Amino acid sequence: LEQNQTHAEQETMEVTLKTEVEAGASGFSVMGGGNEGIFIKKVLKESPASKIFSLREGDQLLSATIFFDNIKYEDALKILQYSEPYRVQFSLKRKIAGKEELEHIHSTVQYKKERVSQVDI
Amino acid sequence: LEQNQTHAEQETMEVTLKTEVEAGASGFSVMGGGNEGIFIKKVLKESPASKIFSLREGDQLLSATIFFDNIKYEDALKILQYSEPYRVQFSLKRKIAGKEELEHIHSTVQYKKERVSQVDI
Repeated sequence: LEQNQTHAEQETMEVTLKTEVEAGASGFSVMGGGNEGIFIKKVLKESPASKIFSLREGDQLLSATIFFDNIKYEDALKILQYSEPYRVQFSLKRKIAGKEELEHIHSTVQYKKERVSQVDI
Repeated sequence: LEQNQTHAEQETMEVTLKTEVEAGASGFSVMGGGNEGIFIKKVLKESPASKIFSLREGDQLLSATIFFDNIKYEDALKILQYSEPYRVQFSLKRKIAGKEELEHIHSTVQYKKERVSQVDI
């Protein structure tokens, strides 16, 4: 058992991390692109990138979720335009007429119920 | 019971939906911004926005997750720059030295284990 633990300590592991959801992700630069992927190049000490988001140099940026509450129209538009060629997933709020329409959503599109009020389409 | 069902059918509900994760979200326009929120203004019939993402006019765009695989450096940079003032969450891949460093991540930052290899920081 002890030998296994020693082995585990020496091993290099790859973990997938999710940062906090916060505004003002400043104080870092990125490098890479294309097949290579996007990596954190430099993180300024004491910056939000370091203190709030816990970004570290060398981290690979897999995805960014941008929340659209209180966003300027122009900024939302730019983000949507620049991300158009790439894989995206949207989270939407939709008003539906009631049970009947909800059942229509369920039957016509693939979905996974996440909460009572949340479905994937 | 029947009366309850009738009532449920007349009710207007608000649901939160997640779209498919796909590239090429074209064929829609947005409106709004600020306190109001961002809403889908127009969706072109037969467009990816309609067919793949199932966007509907009037949907509120709560968030967009942009995946950085095969993204151009310049586009990633623009997306990060435009989203800086707003609430964001990053998904990262990090190489760690092994068990010891993993325990360090666990002890110093708040996290929620999602899978064996996935932690929230």
